[in-house]
Amino acid sequence: MEKVIRVVLAGPRGKMGTEALQLIERTEHFELVSAVDYKYGGGTVQQFYPGYQGEAAVYETLEECIENEKFDVLVDLTTPEIGKKHAFLSLKNGIRPVIGTTGFTNDELAELKELASQNGLGCIIAPNFAIGAILMMKFSAMAAKYFKDIEIIELHHDQKLDAPSGTALKTVQMIEEAREYKRQGHPSEVETEKGARGAEMNGMRVHSVRLPGLVAHQQVLFGGDGQLLTVRHDSMNRASFMSGVKVSIEEVMKLSELIYGLENIMD
Amino acid sequence: MEKVIRVVLAGPRGKMGTEALQLIERTEHFELVSAVDYKYGGGTVQQFYPGYQGEAAVYETLEECIENEKFDVLVDLTTPEIGKKHAFLSLKNGIRPVIGTTGFTNDELAELKELASQNGLGCIIAPNFAIGAILMMKFSAMAAKYFKDIEIIELHHDQKLDAPSGTALKTVQMIEEAREYKRQGHPSEVETEKGARGAEMNGMRVHSVRLPGLVAHQQVLFGGDGQLLTVRHDSMNRASFMSGVKVSIEEVMKLSELIYGLENIMD
Amino acid sequence: MEKVIRVVLAGPRGKMGTEALQLIERTEHFELVSAVDYKYGGGTVQQFYPGYQGEAAVYETLEECIENEKFDVLVDLTTPEIGKKHAFLSLKNGIRPVIGTTGFTNDELAELKELASQNGLGCIIAPNFAIGAILMMKFSAMAAKYFKDIEIIELHHDQKLDAPSGTALKTVQMIEEAREYKRQGHPSEVETEKGARGAEMNGMRVHSVRLPGLVAHQQVLFGGDGQLLTVRHDSMNRASFMSGVKVSIEEVMKLSELIYGLENIMD
Amino acid sequence: MEKVIRVVLAGPRGKMGTEALQLIERTEHFELVSAVDYKYGGGTVQQFYPGYQGEAAVYETLEECIENEKFDVLVDLTTPEIGKKHAFLSLKNGIRPVIGTTGFTNDELAELKELASQNGLGCIIAPNFAIGAILMMKFSAMAAKYFKDIEIIELHHDQKLDAPSGTALKTVQMIEEAREYKRQGHPSEVETEKGARGAEMNGMRVHSVRLPGLVAHQQVLFGGDGQLLTVRHDSMNRASFMSGVKVSIEEVMKLSELIYGLENIMD
Repeated sequence: MEKVIRVVLAGPRGKMGTEALQLIERTEHFELVSAVDYKYGGGTVQQFYPGYQGEAAVYETLEECIENEKFDVLVDLTTPEIGKKHAFLSLKNGIRPVIGTTGFTNDELAELKELASQNGLGCIIAPNFAIGAILMMKFSAMAAKYFKDIEIIELHHDQKLDAPSGTALKTVQMIEEAREYKRQGHPSEVETEKGARGAEMNGMRVHSVRLPGLVAHQQVLFGGDGQLLTVRHDSMNRASFMSGVKVSIEEVMKLSELIYGLENIMD
Repeated sequence: MEKVIRVVLAGPRGKMGTEALQLIERTEHFELVSAVDYKYGGGTVQQFYPGYQGEAAVYETLEECIENEKFDVLVDLTTPEIGKKHAFLSLKNGIRPVIGTTGFTNDELAELKELASQNGLGCIIAPNFAIGAILMMKFSAMAAKYFKDIEIIELHHDQKLDAPSGTALKTVQMIEEAREYKRQGHPSEVETEKGARGAEMNGMRVHSVRLPGLVAHQQVLFGGDGQLLTVRHDSMNRASFMSGVKVSIEEVMKLSELIYGLENIMD
Repeated sequence: MEKVIRVVLAGPRGKMGTEALQLIERTEHFELVSAVDYKYGGGTVQQFYPGYQGEAAVYETLEECIENEKFDVLVDLTTPEIGKKHAFLSLKNGIRPVIGTTGFTNDELAELKELASQNGLGCIIAPNFAIGAILMMKFSAMAAKYFKDIEIIELHHDQKLDAPSGTALKTVQMIEEAREYKRQGHPSEVETEKGARGAEMNGMRVHSVRLPGLVAHQQVLFGGDGQLLTVRHDSMNRASFMSGVKVSIEEVMKLSELIYGLENIMD
Repeated sequence: MEKVIRVVLAGPRGKMGTEALQLIERTEHFELVSAVDYKYGGGTVQQFYPGYQGEAAVYETLEECIENEKFDVLVDLTTPEIGKKHAFLSLKNGIRPVIGTTGFTNDELAELKELASQNGLGCIIAPNFAIGAILMMKFSAMAAKYFKDIEIIELHHDQKLDAPSGTALKTVQMIEEAREYKRQGHPSEVETEKGARGAEMNGMRVHSVRLPGLVAHQQVLFGGDGQLLTVRHDSMNRASFMSGVKVSIEEVMKLSELIYGLENIMD
């Protein structure tokens, strides 16, 4: 029988948090010990999670929670500022953090890395929990060794403000590490309409499509003599992040160091 | 039994011409009467079409050919200049032209239109013979009535010089006729990498992908509430044009007027 | 200014009904007059539609509703049995029905057709409101005139019980009307694993993919010499049906006869 | 400067052989030493490779060739029977074989493995040289660790006799090694048209599409909560195999053992 992992969730009412609550609840070898929520301190999880049958308490702060409860893993889906604070606090108290927020500086990561190793504790910081998206990026970096001509098409709903998407930028960065700069397309090619050839990044081309009806999708195309290789990820809704949260909770128990990015615990 | 259509082919040695020779040969109800080729005048088709078993002669000019042969249809796959001359000459001699070249001015088209109607002769001028591509454009114009948010992704081999492709420009034009200008995407969207959102044309966005391994492909995406409609055409090789040549030879026999663009003989 | 259309909705609490309530509410030229719901008769729409600010009453039966309210269109999203009853009742009382249920016999349709024409009233019966899906089917029937080799791949979530999907069956039927039977594939082709070539329907092949993460998707592939034409529809969520409900409410006001299937009001 | 690799090609006139001749010719660090061809023994490569400017001789047998020439690598694109013979003969004579034929028994592979290791010589046996296809299979096996629900759609021209394709079968086999049996789809799902759900292989479903216009394509779909990961390979023509031949010639020089399948020299 699998050993039960005792989990505390910080940020249980956000979009991700709500999904994570359900995930922890319905996974047999996870136990929801309590939640940390500045607004519901002193209350119970039932107050904001209607279907919930358990008795997990809510603490206003992680400090209080640590004082009162025994648990293995902190899952943090709050804000960059709080996420950072919680990461340090957990490691100092023998708890393994799974942090889903961004914004860590290199110095902070180095400090956390040392802290984790000193204490022999796993710590996962994951800017992206969508396992499918991470595999897409990982495969792209691998394919870039064999196919030097690459274009990225990312497609999102038309309420998105920035182009290219964060995932596209991260994909470019991972490919750059695996392939040297290569200027693509015909040397004399001409855009008769400005922007047609997309954004040039390290010689690659990135195209951002925005349409109502789309959610979050990306395809990476690799061209070679007489062939095309395509890796595509479609994220239909927020549930797509939960498989990554699940894997992280399981893996952080086996680790004794800091891992940044889920791509580094997947083989 | 289907009546045999007697065909003369001008431009039998170009890439399209070579395919057309084969098409006319292997279609039972077509008969290759002769070819027009400035270089092989006085010779026979066998000289440049090795497998060919027939006896079709080659004439240096269309004039000579008309003097010496009886036929129904002229298929012209030469150059814009010669194509034009041949169109007029055919109609004046009771022959129905199928012209695959571009470059006709509006005045020339008007003149040909009158000539065709006066003589009660069919005449087809087709800048594009790929029936699949034409259906893609036709469907796009139809869908644009119901879906106002549209993006075009065209993908070609990386030896192509111009972006967007001619087919993409033609598609935009056909959609414009069916839909009013609409600025797409979020009003405040920002390109953090220039060109990411593609070329803006009439509010639509057009993206040009260029990779080795690709041939000639285009997809048109229509976004609406919770749904996406996509029309895609893949052209794998030049054979894709031949179905359009075949339909044109058949249809030009039934017409008694000029038709510009195969989309106008397809319903 | 557009004239406001007064609408009554029967079946306001189902999955489709909930979406339709929102649609009617947020469309400026639609007015929600009342709802018909056997469970909330005598109450108000606010009871089951939390955000709602209006005062529309709920009637237990359509009869009562007709007695007490003046309106133009009945939108019915109930069950086949009730949908039928409501169609007849509406037409007899000068109201134009938009019926989203299935299960009408040919006799019933004939009877309704006569009733609608006699009264000069529009009536729309729509087994499918997803405009994108309907265009996909319409385009497929059109393409089938030029491309005789066709395969359908439909993809749905893995909780779906039947394969092929209703949309795939309807697509096959619409293609059948446009193309003669053609046995596809190589005459001597062999399945080394049973079922690999999919279901044979009128010579076409239909493939049903079922995976978690998928919602409701279909692509129709048309193959020809050197080319491929693909029409694809992706339905991401139930909102995809609402554009069809909207068009139906608008169009039924202009009609004076029965229309079965939205494909017949789209050109 | 890269050291030139001296290559002999057996089977220079087949479809693959013709492409390989061009590849060896146009790659700067490869030198075409001679060819082995039972029909042109005593002649030169120019007899069957028109554009060729070099002076490479043709030998009737590999034995003769080895006696008369000094070279590093034998590329064999003949038949299973001859390919086997050539593999042994090369290794015994200090030459590194790159064999593109199939049909080796496990015993033969074991014997060759020992022979290669004893002599400290690289030897590559590659049933498939299309690097993109191999990456697709490799990625599929990797993704199968995280996504247990998988369907394969392979698409080929309609002259193909067998379904599913060899690549699909090989993909299934590689996934099987990475994932336990899982029966997919709803337990109560029903095929109303036989074959709709495709072929069941190890719980996965495999669908074979056959259409004119298609060449050789495959996509592997991985479904998870709210997301879909797709890996796709399109082979447009035979040139797609040449990148694999090139990599093999380069890699076999660095190896001192037998490798079966290019997936094992790619990371």
